[in-house]
Amino acid sequence: MDSYRNRLEEVQLRMRGEGIDYLLIAPSANLLYLTGIEEQITERLTLLAIPASGKSTFLLPAFEAARFANHQELFDLRVWEETDDPYKALKAIFDPAPPTTVGVEDTCWARFLLGLQEVLPMSRFITAGAVLHPLRERKRPEELDRLRAVSRSADEAFTRLISSELVGLSELEVSRRLADLLLESGSETVGFATVASGPHSASPHHTMGNRRISKGDALLFDFGGRIGGYYADVTRTVAVGGLPEGFEEVYGIVREAQQAAVERVEPGVPAGEVDAAAREVIAGAGYGEHFSHRVGHGVGLEIHEPPYLRGDSDQPLEPGMTFSVEPGIYLPGRFGVRIEDTVLVTREGGERLNHCSRELVILP
Amino acid sequence: MDSYRNRLEEVQLRMRGEGIDYLLIAPSANLLYLTGIEEQITERLTLLAIPASGKSTFLLPAFEAARFANHQELFDLRVWEETDDPYKALKAIFDPAPPTTVGVEDTCWARFLLGLQEVLPMSRFITAGAVLHPLRERKRPEELDRLRAVSRSADEAFTRLISSELVGLSELEVSRRLADLLLESGSETVGFATVASGPHSASPHHTMGNRRISKGDALLFDFGGRIGGYYADVTRTVAVGGLPEGFEEVYGIVREAQQAAVERVEPGVPAGEVDAAAREVIAGAGYGEHFSHRVGHGVGLEIHEPPYLRGDSDQPLEPGMTFSVEPGIYLPGRFGVRIEDTVLVTREGGERLNHCSRELVILP
Repeated sequence: MDSYRNRLEEVQLRMRGEGIDYLLIAPSANLLYLTGIEEQITERLTLLAIPASGKSTFLLPAFEAARFANHQELFDLRVWEETDDPYKALKAIFDPAPPTTVGVEDTCWARFLLGLQEVLPMSRFITAGAVLHPLRERKRPEELDRLRAVSRSADEAFTRLISSELVGLSELEVSRRLADLLLESGSETVGFATVASGPHSASPHHTMGNRRISKGDALLFDFGGRIGGYYADVTRTVAVGGLPEGFEEVYGIVREAQQAAVERVEPGVPAGEVDAAAREVIAGAGYGEHFSHRVGHGVGLEIHEPPYLRGDSDQPLEPGMTFSVEPGIYLPGRFGVRIEDTVLVTREGGERLNHCSRELVILP
Repeated sequence: MDSYRNRLEEVQLRMRGEGIDYLLIAPSANLLYLTGIEEQITERLTLLAIPASGKSTFLLPAFEAARFANHQELFDLRVWEETDDPYKALKAIFDPAPPTTVGVEDTCWARFLLGLQEVLPMSRFITAGAVLHPLRERKRPEELDRLRAVSRSADEAFTRLISSELVGLSELEVSRRLADLLLESGSETVGFATVASGPHSASPHHTMGNRRISKGDALLFDFGGRIGGYYADVTRTVAVGGLPEGFEEVYGIVREAQQAAVERVEPGVPAGEVDAAAREVIAGAGYGEHFSHRVGHGVGLEIHEPPYLRGDSDQPLEPGMTFSVEPGIYLPGRFGVRIEDTVLVTREGGERLNHCSRELVILP
């Protein structure tokens, strides 16, 4: 509980600096970060109310309360019964004076924010991320241990996957095999295990189906497990039974772009420059219009989290940040190639957390 | 696409009736219901903008657009590039005049609602559920086919689960076996497969762990798969290797309460009366304070959805509604018993969609 108490205190310090009276944190990665509590958001109002000073209050349905009795070091409990108005119970937390500025959990449901705005009509609402993301972006040693472990698990799963026969299997079957390998290699749960084959690889966010892998396919894997709450995020692209036309050239360009982007990582460098480093290589080779997304996103308790590495971002990189570096080239109707590692910012530069092969692989 | 077009038209008719100018639907069960599109909500603004009259517009990141090219019958596409301001693209949809009243997806993230309120400062925001839930609550024949199929799959999985040896396995191991059985019995994916053993069963929402099943345990299973987007939701409680003290009495009371609640289901009856029917039996037997939650919730494209069967609800039941009926008695430190079926409202009354045994079972 000590580390959570420290995190809560750090948040309160920032709240006082920014003039925020209360944070209202619904079940989310932020709640997990601040308390270790992992819950799904549901239709029953559940919020951690963090004041700028003093003890926090966890508002939740009465029948859930027993599960959180051992958290009294972090917060008091305030419960509402099934037929109570939960907003009334919430409002009582603020007595006697309603808060002027409230930071609401970014992923809290709109219906709850509308409810809050109704019972706190004079309060100003902003996103809680404004104070929480700067903390979460710089990973602490205990967080990095987990990110390293889960990245290793993903590397091992990939290495084992490509040593097995895949021709004739469907995308969903290969995905299940990859998921099993993530668990066998130490991941506690599977985050995602996307498999895009042939022309499907040309869609950056493919929905898997029953298409069967055949010789001449490009095969793109985007995957990662989870350990202690932290995700891995890796992409590799291979060829099956021979090289699709143009694949070798495109693969070489993407690999070079990814290398250039990782090399650009350094404390103080604006995030946008990492994107630009990859884009320069790809545009220089004439494929600029086929690299249609940002080069990366933060990876931690969420698969997508700040910092976002977009071309227009001037946010300076800081030691302890972990994010994906994942340029791609997508040729509609033909194939796509993406190479992605999770990268840590150290004092010296960018350190890849993934080490599975980035060489051009042709599966049998 | 025909059924989706009909649903969109029905929604627009309701919007005009309620004076709503636009609905903004983020990726959600509502988007799935209206378009067949199943997406996760992410940090990239993605909304279906439905006007009270005329064609809808799907606002989404440019690199995702190709996946929705075959939906032009339902909506036009409007894309934003990675370095664009997505709210500017959204605002252009409303030109020349911003909408007066906007219904926003209930589960849309708060950060997006704050962004919308900033670019549409004169608009009034309400929840989209107000017009969508009445439609979704009354299941159509094609929806009922799926609900019946997925409920059958859950029944079969349970029947097979309790014919195997469970003593010595951990909760997580039993959960994995139950999940496998759901898939083997026809579910396309696993919704949830919760296993609570011994005193853990006394927590209505238990987080599973490595506790091993032993003789003398109560064992509570709350589970369901998914077919064509629709969930099953069933709970059964059994005893292992003999009856815990007081189990038989409590089991009998819960079973009687569940039967009384199902028998109270009838078109026109207020939802709260179904809750009351179960509560009467349990309170009459002296266990009122140990039945700490509502008796049920709607089941469909979401595991929890309207109607909610709370004691204070005067919403009249209507034919086609499907919801759980799941009274329980929870004795802290000892055990809990819950019996749950998904129930359909027909013209005649309540029809259980689950048929696996509700008899008191003692596993070896």
